Amino acid sequence: MRGDSAACLRVHPGHVGGAYAMPGMGPFRGSRAELVRVPFADANCVVLPGAPGDEHEDDFVLIADAWVTGWHATELAGVRAADSVVFGAGAVGLLAAYSALLRGASEVYSVDLIDERLDKAAELGFVPVDVRQGDPVEQIRELRRARPGTRLPGEEEMGGVMAGIDAVGFQARDRRHPDREDPRQVINDLARLVNPTGRLGIAGVFTTTDAAPAPEGGHADGALQVPWAALFNKGVTVGFGRTHDRRYTTHLRDLIISGRARPSQIVTHHESLENAPSIYDRFDRRVDGIVKAVFHH
Amino acid sequence: MRGDSAACLRVHPGHVGGAYAMPGMGPFRGSRAELVRVPFADANCVVLPGAPGDEHEDDFVLIADAWVTGWHATELAGVRAADSVVFGAGAVGLLAAYSALLRGASEVYSVDLIDERLDKAAELGFVPVDVRQGDPVEQIRELRRARPGTRLPGEEEMGGVMAGIDAVGFQARDRRHPDREDPRQVINDLARLVNPTGRLGIAGVFTTTDAAPAPEGGHADGALQVPWAALFNKGVTVGFGRTHDRRYTTHLRDLIISGRARPSQIVTHHESLENAPSIYDRFDRRVDGIVKAVFHH
Amino acid sequence: MRGDSAACLRVHPGHVGGAYAMPGMGPFRGSRAELVRVPFADANCVVLPGAPGDEHEDDFVLIADAWVTGWHATELAGVRAADSVVFGAGAVGLLAAYSALLRGASEVYSVDLIDERLDKAAELGFVPVDVRQGDPVEQIRELRRARPGTRLPGEEEMGGVMAGIDAVGFQARDRRHPDREDPRQVINDLARLVNPTGRLGIAGVFTTTDAAPAPEGGHADGALQVPWAALFNKGVTVGFGRTHDRRYTTHLRDLIISGRARPSQIVTHHESLENAPSIYDRFDRRVDGIVKAVFHH
Amino acid sequence: MRGDSAACLRVHPGHVGGAYAMPGMGPFRGSRAELVRVPFADANCVVLPGAPGDEHEDDFVLIADAWVTGWHATELAGVRAADSVVFGAGAVGLLAAYSALLRGASEVYSVDLIDERLDKAAELGFVPVDVRQGDPVEQIRELRRARPGTRLPGEEEMGGVMAGIDAVGFQARDRRHPDREDPRQVINDLARLVNPTGRLGIAGVFTTTDAAPAPEGGHADGALQVPWAALFNKGVTVGFGRTHDRRYTTHLRDLIISGRARPSQIVTHHESLENAPSIYDRFDRRVDGIVKAVFHH
Repeated sequence: MRGDSAACLRVHPGHVGGAYAMPGMGPFRGSRAELVRVPFADANCVVLPGAPGDEHEDDFVLIADAWVTGWHATELAGVRAADSVVFGAGAVGLLAAYSALLRGASEVYSVDLIDERLDKAAELGFVPVDVRQGDPVEQIRELRRARPGTRLPGEEEMGGVMAGIDAVGFQARDRRHPDREDPRQVINDLARLVNPTGRLGIAGVFTTTDAAPAPEGGHADGALQVPWAALFNKGVTVGFGRTHDRRYTTHLRDLIISGRARPSQIVTHHESLENAPSIYDRFDRRVDGIVKAVFHH
Repeated sequence: MRGDSAACLRVHPGHVGGAYAMPGMGPFRGSRAELVRVPFADANCVVLPGAPGDEHEDDFVLIADAWVTGWHATELAGVRAADSVVFGAGAVGLLAAYSALLRGASEVYSVDLIDERLDKAAELGFVPVDVRQGDPVEQIRELRRARPGTRLPGEEEMGGVMAGIDAVGFQARDRRHPDREDPRQVINDLARLVNPTGRLGIAGVFTTTDAAPAPEGGHADGALQVPWAALFNKGVTVGFGRTHDRRYTTHLRDLIISGRARPSQIVTHHESLENAPSIYDRFDRRVDGIVKAVFHH
Repeated sequence: MRGDSAACLRVHPGHVGGAYAMPGMGPFRGSRAELVRVPFADANCVVLPGAPGDEHEDDFVLIADAWVTGWHATELAGVRAADSVVFGAGAVGLLAAYSALLRGASEVYSVDLIDERLDKAAELGFVPVDVRQGDPVEQIRELRRARPGTRLPGEEEMGGVMAGIDAVGFQARDRRHPDREDPRQVINDLARLVNPTGRLGIAGVFTTTDAAPAPEGGHADGALQVPWAALFNKGVTVGFGRTHDRRYTTHLRDLIISGRARPSQIVTHHESLENAPSIYDRFDRRVDGIVKAVFHH
Repeated sequence: MRGDSAACLRVHPGHVGGAYAMPGMGPFRGSRAELVRVPFADANCVVLPGAPGDEHEDDFVLIADAWVTGWHATELAGVRAADSVVFGAGAVGLLAAYSALLRGASEVYSVDLIDERLDKAAELGFVPVDVRQGDPVEQIRELRRARPGTRLPGEEEMGGVMAGIDAVGFQARDRRHPDREDPRQVINDLARLVNPTGRLGIAGVFTTTDAAPAPEGGHADGALQVPWAALFNKGVTVGFGRTHDRRYTTHLRDLIISGRARPSQIVTHHESLENAPSIYDRFDRRVDGIVKAVFHH
């Protein structure tokens, strides 16, 4: 009614929205399949030009997937012509950073801890920030200090970016103990980095029904200890949640057709559907440099 | 430059904004005084009609004080023609609720635990909700269920209001242990009550430099455990922070002059400046029903 | 998809939107009938409480009709806590003015030239401005000058209101020659009255396919001579067009249910469907003080 | 107060805003001079890195001039990830088109009738549209039809772009009679090209005090005959006016420093201040291919 498709109350009655293969998001099994049943397809289909196998196929695939989420993240964070930071350089994070550049960000910092992702970030024109090298907030401030430009005394210490995005979510690894999860670090860093009057977009998934044991400072119901007073002090706006696809899909399609956007640059693997289990297994173990795989039938 | 006066980087160098008599907000002593020095008065003064003692004097006093904060809270929360809830019926909370009604809210729930405040809320046309009577979220849902209107199954359980305001801040009392502080309850309740795609405005002060011992689930640096995943799941937007006064002051003045607004209805006491210490002492102890006092010289 | 239902491209292929009984708006005959076929009713229906004949029946009728248009007008004009003006005190104009008050306008000027409408405007709390008494712009400036308040020299002459609404449209009568049409006067007056950085909402219908001979300064294709340079000089924003109903309908319903809004106050006549032709005839001739009639079957 | 510097009521009392060397914009003589007095310089100065003669000097010069105006035009027109059109490929038009690309427009059509400007448009990545080759609206629709992509029947005929900009203003040449002025053609074409729910930004100057004889369909007071009903039918929003510089200047500076933007690409001539009269004369006569000249002292 108001274009808020991610908050649909009908697709999964008694819940907010629905999604394939997500816990708590309805009876929709995985979409990596030969045939998929699409609820409300009359409202959701986007007609695309060309034929399977065309040059834009991989680009179009990403509209239905990580790009529309990454683009929404830049809406949540109100990306404008100023520095942005994106935590997480997985598929959504890379495409959020890519969207930020497309929308005029002056500099985009892409924070991660996996080599292949950081390489991809650099290749796409973002400034890669490797958390294994130390506090990412200090690294970004140092990069900014090194850039010419005159600022007020202390300005750098109070922030750095007008827009920040969490594209990691609740399964963020603890930097000091990479075998544990701790999503609080990303949120803390965003609160430190964002400028007064800036915006944060929380696009990484946070779930109220995590099966895993709660990390320190977090609860199984999805409660988290976050720097609430710092956000108040800076007068920040925080936008949360899933993408309202149809606000963006035809626009993203046209960016591809006009040649302005090539989101398929993040695709590292093409595989047959039969190999999907193996790919997911290697992806989970972070081996073989899988940033994004497209499956063919 | 952009109308963001609360985020001024010059009034208190190295910090965000400044305020009278607030910890961490600069070298500005209390403003309840015979004479006050006003920084940047050339930019901040608002010319008012009339003379001291005129009928609108108390109304005008509140523009410089609680009303502009309450009004900003309704901006943060994006109040529109739907139900709103305001936690806290102190001066800022009452004037946030009052602003919400002025801006077209269909129903405003005003949550508190002090009789005089709840009475004032009812007098001003809000629905008072007394947390001493039980879970305010359930009370509000019960009130809404009793109202005619047809909703989707389960809709009520997922939210209730499009806009929610925290006008309490870090010194919120723990409901089960009123001698302790616990600001998490208000935030939890807001997250439960807000509708999918709704907005929250955090107008109550949260400070990064609290001198008091941190409550359970909170830290002295202002970190708080909040329902992050619930906010994500509902796709909520949360606006934080202090009011950008000059965006609103002349408009609020005109609402008074035209007779549309009478914020002075919240004033319960007029006192001489000499009595200020006594008034503040009684206000802190919540005796004598002091909702708002205006001091005269 | 984006909540822009008034710009639906499917309801009347090859055209923008559709409406009952409007030239150029599709094959939808009049809706004053025993039975009406509703296209896309699954998306457009709003469930209402109560039963036919209930106390809110007339209020609810107006959601499907003039109120949602009047409310949209206040969105187009960005009504805020400052003075507003609405040209036209027919059903849409009165309910636009009513919506402006509901949304916090400090003062609403309601401009018309028919006694019953001006009386209704006064009854609802607007300031009636009778164009038969002279230039409405000067009348409003005079009223504002008489109001206490201190303004910059010349400020009054540059504007007056932050929001202005045209609820008249292309069939506006020429004030000097009431038997002729001239929609330019209203637009000129709005451009004179609006403050720098203000907004105008054009909610009255302007049609590209007028059957009547074009007035002086206008064309049959809907071109009009308007004060383009004045709008540029003031940095105004002008919002045009028909209402996107479903953005507002449930909110307006709730304003009625909560008792905050009684739009049925504009209804002057209840009639049987059989009398509709007679009512429309008298309405067109502006006799019998018909502001708004509700038909019963 | 609210960041609306272009609507300042103090810089030129009794008028809206002020500018150097513009009729009706205050007692500020031309700014092409050895020394310039800057009113309110404490609020307006932007500190830049580097020294005169540095690599970014020309880029920075354009922040104080055409770029901030072109950027504001994209704000007025709400440029987003969809096709845009900019009428006029002078300095402001080129930099508006450049800003549109920076902000993610899928395709930018740049309409003009001077070879050097059209060449520059093509060089910067816009699609040049030469009005000497025929109706620019039909040319753009033809280009869009040739692009792959599936649209609704008749969709192309109803619009084409989500955002349109007038960077020409009141001195637009009549296409059929290039020795006459007629600003109505640009506005008509924008109204034909804009999509339903789209936005137009009017950034070219329209003056209420033109000394020249009024063109057909226009008045010396700046009234113009425009397609009012078409704008209503499409539900368009039209933003007018001059740029609020300080909203954008530091962001534009940072786009230059980070290497993302090189607005100086539009500069075709560097000249000494002594040659300014000659340059302006040749610029007015459209000889020697002067798109933008920077003067050195």
